[in-house]
Amino acid sequence: MATAPNGSVRKRVIVVGGGFAGMNAALGLAKLPVDITLIDRRNHHTFQPLLYQVALAVLSPAEIAQPIRSILRDHRNIEVLMDEVVGFDLSERRVHLKTGAVLEYDYLVLGTGSTHSYFGRDDWAPLAPGLKTVEDATEIRRRVLLAFELAERQMQEDGSHPPLNFVIVGGGPTGVELAGAISDIARLYMARDFRHINPATAHVLILEGSPNVLGAYPPDLQQKAVEQLADLGVAVRTGARVTDIQPGYVMIGDERLESAVTLWAAGVQASPLGKMLGVPLDKRGCVLVDQFLNPPGHPEVFVCGDLAHVEENGRLVPGVAQPAMQMGTYAAKRIGRLIGIGLGSDGTGLNEPFHYFDKGDMATIGRKAAVANIKWPFKGRWSGLPAWLTWLFVHIFFLIGFRNRIAVFRQWAWTYLTFSDGARLITGSVELPGWNAEYAAQHTDAIIDPVETPLGEG
Amino acid sequence: MATAPNGSVRKRVIVVGGGFAGMNAALGLAKLPVDITLIDRRNHHTFQPLLYQVALAVLSPAEIAQPIRSILRDHRNIEVLMDEVVGFDLSERRVHLKTGAVLEYDYLVLGTGSTHSYFGRDDWAPLAPGLKTVEDATEIRRRVLLAFELAERQMQEDGSHPPLNFVIVGGGPTGVELAGAISDIARLYMARDFRHINPATAHVLILEGSPNVLGAYPPDLQQKAVEQLADLGVAVRTGARVTDIQPGYVMIGDERLESAVTLWAAGVQASPLGKMLGVPLDKRGCVLVDQFLNPPGHPEVFVCGDLAHVEENGRLVPGVAQPAMQMGTYAAKRIGRLIGIGLGSDGTGLNEPFHYFDKGDMATIGRKAAVANIKWPFKGRWSGLPAWLTWLFVHIFFLIGFRNRIAVFRQWAWTYLTFSDGARLITGSVELPGWNAEYAAQHTDAIIDPVETPLGEG
Repeated sequence: MATAPNGSVRKRVIVVGGGFAGMNAALGLAKLPVDITLIDRRNHHTFQPLLYQVALAVLSPAEIAQPIRSILRDHRNIEVLMDEVVGFDLSERRVHLKTGAVLEYDYLVLGTGSTHSYFGRDDWAPLAPGLKTVEDATEIRRRVLLAFELAERQMQEDGSHPPLNFVIVGGGPTGVELAGAISDIARLYMARDFRHINPATAHVLILEGSPNVLGAYPPDLQQKAVEQLADLGVAVRTGARVTDIQPGYVMIGDERLESAVTLWAAGVQASPLGKMLGVPLDKRGCVLVDQFLNPPGHPEVFVCGDLAHVEENGRLVPGVAQPAMQMGTYAAKRIGRLIGIGLGSDGTGLNEPFHYFDKGDMATIGRKAAVANIKWPFKGRWSGLPAWLTWLFVHIFFLIGFRNRIAVFRQWAWTYLTFSDGARLITGSVELPGWNAEYAAQHTDAIIDPVETPLGEG
Repeated sequence: MATAPNGSVRKRVIVVGGGFAGMNAALGLAKLPVDITLIDRRNHHTFQPLLYQVALAVLSPAEIAQPIRSILRDHRNIEVLMDEVVGFDLSERRVHLKTGAVLEYDYLVLGTGSTHSYFGRDDWAPLAPGLKTVEDATEIRRRVLLAFELAERQMQEDGSHPPLNFVIVGGGPTGVELAGAISDIARLYMARDFRHINPATAHVLILEGSPNVLGAYPPDLQQKAVEQLADLGVAVRTGARVTDIQPGYVMIGDERLESAVTLWAAGVQASPLGKMLGVPLDKRGCVLVDQFLNPPGHPEVFVCGDLAHVEENGRLVPGVAQPAMQMGTYAAKRIGRLIGIGLGSDGTGLNEPFHYFDKGDMATIGRKAAVANIKWPFKGRWSGLPAWLTWLFVHIFFLIGFRNRIAVFRQWAWTYLTFSDGARLITGSVELPGWNAEYAAQHTDAIIDPVETPLGEG
């Protein structure tokens, strides 16, 4: 342990996870006389709100992801360790790493987020990828672009192709964003770059189990979202519970929907690190924390972001970037106060609990539409282009620490205005699960004439 | 078959391969009254001369690769087919595709290039990746960056790490470019972003079997190259034949060299499509063609680029971008003449053979040095910064058809001047073949103190 200028032993803080929670905690702690080690399995922080833009080939991974080391480079009291946590010993205040190393801490901040939940059907994962990582995004990009290529190939060679359907399971913000973007690609990219396939034969379908898309939004904005999706030719089916996913199709009860590409935007579950703590969890595996973000009996442990189960006015704080950032910042601030920094002269502030300051929610729908439910700095609900421009501004603004914020904006403006090439690269395998010659052969029943009426209108 | 305005049946031309040869052939043919089908396994054209910049995290894949469809979008007589050729029937003028489809042609242009040759040791491929595709580049990027991360981790956890050696097998232009760029990364990126590893312990070594690096260059430039490599701390061993490659080390006879990352820049062989033609090949599998780029007895078949064995003044035309472009353009021009277009009034030009117009060669060494052997528009040999600036200008200039030519230049200028973050993402597996805890444990003999003298100086 190093010694601080005043002679006191410097506290060691371990931050696990380089997402919004972890990065904000680390940046807050950097100002304190503590030694910080940030541990992540990956070498980069991902700006998740724009991940779907990589998935849909508008942006390149490097435009929304940046090495954690580079972001934290100038903070000499932060060390970045690319390793994986495999266990905790809360009583001894130790973290066990995959490499066998054991690190000690005085304070622990956990922000390892969440992962996809296939509701116990993990066999669906390879058939319906979700969108959490850069790898997920490039895999989705590969599948979507490949579906167009294979349909074009079959039209050239056979004069017909299986239905070019894109089925998105889940009508939350991610599902809606993916659906709108795929529809854009289908209408704009296919029409320009392909000779044989007819854009009218591409269909995007959102399957939502609940009665409404964007469940967290007020009903009027939900309605606006459905209308804007309809304008993009995206069909929405609510109350539709997926019972099976197979190569090339999705089942809803006995109903079979042909699907060239199936994407998963339905459920999330907490990162498995929650379980390793040996503290109470909710049913999603999120850690039940008190008003200081501590699990019971561990005031030195802070759980932030998607991994934390936090309620505000009886309502669950959503697992999105905004609260994750706020929790990370709060954890750093509270650690400072626990070591006597940032307290009022009369010691006030030590017991200040975490409060989620909800600035509102936004979801984009395609390239010119969105819904926004703004709560700060003013109240307002709107949709369409104004909402989209607000969304654009806010996200560009929050690409802080990303040297290419401007480059992204330029890229974006360019791509959205001209709908030019973006980053439409297919890398990796050119075999598409459930969409290949064998599949096409098995599904001759499903082979459609390219001018058949859209699925969404059926 | 479509019919031309003059009532004659339009000829069908099949172009296989979307590299420099195929793209230039297609763009040349686009002006003729023919129907063109360009077939490639991939959806994108890669600007290979800049591929090493992706491998070393300066550029993103999308900045040097672009969908073939997008490049050819405006040429309505060109169809792009993403498929794989599995056989030819030259007598029936047919191409067989992996999907089972059979396409007929009047003229065939082949430009499927070359692949790595491990001299019969294909088991080395996973241990020492080469640099031909975007996937290769991202894999090399992953391994190089991961080596730094793992060394840093071992320093943090154990206080020592196995030698951070980067061994490049092959001292041609690619080997020299990779070596210089890795050295830049080691000195500039490691020093700034890492806390524990000492850049002085990273070593880049080029192993060249022949007596000289850059064998195709004049001796004075070879010498300059070695000097500039030495300035970057890159060690060069000539006359060094690799006898084995294993996880974590390379053997030269009985001598064992520890290697964190081994890269292959040694040998290439022609694409396997050459064999499928059933015509005479050279020992590298290249097709022996006449002065019209035709294999014997097939004036309707043109073999271009790396796949062709072409000699000019008794010297083999090198397998680089320049001759490939020229061959593709020539094939298109000759096909035009064979159908009576572009002939002189007296029929001259029909028998004009292919000539390689050699404008010279350039190879970069790191970010401010290069060697250039210019033959046109003026003769000149130089090295260092002037050569590098020439190289930069020429390559930017030839990024024709890439909408992001300017963006690349900006990115480059930025990254080279500031050595900022570029695109240093590690995606995919975080396990490095031959560089992990087990490997480190097995090689305690090789564990070095971080200030040991560099391998290159040993």
